[in-house]
Amino acid sequence: MLHLQTTIMSATTEMHIWNGQQLEQLEQNYRRDLINCLSGFKSANLIGSVNADGETNLAIFNSVMHIGANPPFMGIVVRPITVPRNTYSNIKQTGFFTINAVQASFLEKAHQTSANYPAQLSEFDECKLTPLYSALHPAPYVLESTVRIGLELNEELHVKSNGTIILIGRIIEVQVPKELVAKDGFVALEKAGTVSVVGLDAYYNPTPIKRLAYARPQAKPGNN
Amino acid sequence: MLHLQTTIMSATTEMHIWNGQQLEQLEQNYRRDLINCLSGFKSANLIGSVNADGETNLAIFNSVMHIGANPPFMGIVVRPITVPRNTYSNIKQTGFFTINAVQASFLEKAHQTSANYPAQLSEFDECKLTPLYSALHPAPYVLESTVRIGLELNEELHVKSNGTIILIGRIIEVQVPKELVAKDGFVALEKAGTVSVVGLDAYYNPTPIKRLAYARPQAKPGNN
Repeated sequence: MLHLQTTIMSATTEMHIWNGQQLEQLEQNYRRDLINCLSGFKSANLIGSVNADGETNLAIFNSVMHIGANPPFMGIVVRPITVPRNTYSNIKQTGFFTINAVQASFLEKAHQTSANYPAQLSEFDECKLTPLYSALHPAPYVLESTVRIGLELNEELHVKSNGTIILIGRIIEVQVPKELVAKDGFVALEKAGTVSVVGLDAYYNPTPIKRLAYARPQAKPGNN
Repeated sequence: MLHLQTTIMSATTEMHIWNGQQLEQLEQNYRRDLINCLSGFKSANLIGSVNADGETNLAIFNSVMHIGANPPFMGIVVRPITVPRNTYSNIKQTGFFTINAVQASFLEKAHQTSANYPAQLSEFDECKLTPLYSALHPAPYVLESTVRIGLELNEELHVKSNGTIILIGRIIEVQVPKELVAKDGFVALEKAGTVSVVGLDAYYNPTPIKRLAYARPQAKPGNN
């Protein structure tokens, strides 16, 4: 029944359809917003880093990705055009960075780190967020975030298509509230107020629908 | 005030803290779930593909990423261990694939595509989803999804850290309901029932908090 409803809605919904050439001809800011939205709901994280002189940097990223669990690797896409270059140069200099989940309690401060501050100013000071240090590495965490990950740079990939860079880090520390972690290792990020982002500026509060069972070929999917 | 509350909560919250060696020693399934959750809220998409014999494949991915808006590029992380190899081999054979946003109306069918079906069976048939074809390329879209993207393979990156592969596609077609697209190009994905995913199996319904203004250094962030 739901299947039929979806089909009917899709058949009657008026669609925008753009081909590659039509996308090229769109106004630049319109295309930027449109294309940035198409990748869907993304995570919002603050990347903490420090240069060889001990100057800290903090920048909001919507491009944190899972690369592997064993060994544990995560990646970030570094685009010099839209994010400060300081994050990349700091990570290259000192070899470490942190990923800190953006939560509703400090969302506006986190977003403000995307402003183009001069390199000698730290976003920790300018955006009133608090650096937190670990004994394991020099990169600063964000105290206000309760889901914090420390990583050591392991690999740098250059995307020939458009010159972006993907940095792969190996997880060397995880700090997460015990009350979020289920017996099977699942982390209920929503209990910490963790937000999601669409495009460059639209923040969302995700609420759980359900966890679905491991899918097996014998099973028949439900109506939805 | 909110700043102080956050600090106090963080100071009194009992934390799990794992270093790299302790992560290695975790039970394998626990570590898989834990690490997969740390990358935060991710998009859920069905990747449609077809081989040289015209046999279709459909697989759910949580690794779609934005690579660039001009020219428009998106990427997916292909991990042979957790997703069917058919997607990768089909894309290599025919050079095209589709990204279709998973929406609540067909969530269970979409999740069921993660089952390990034999290569000769199509997930479209097994999971009761409907292929939809475009004149521009041979890869099948999902009719039930109202946010559909057609891509041509442009680049393949090999992650040395763990052998995963990142495929970069150039967007050659976008199909999205007109009612979702704002005047500035922003796409209100939630209006189409688009879901988000944490880890491998936990689905979420994101509701808007707000869009924040472009951040400038002169601005002072609010209390949160």
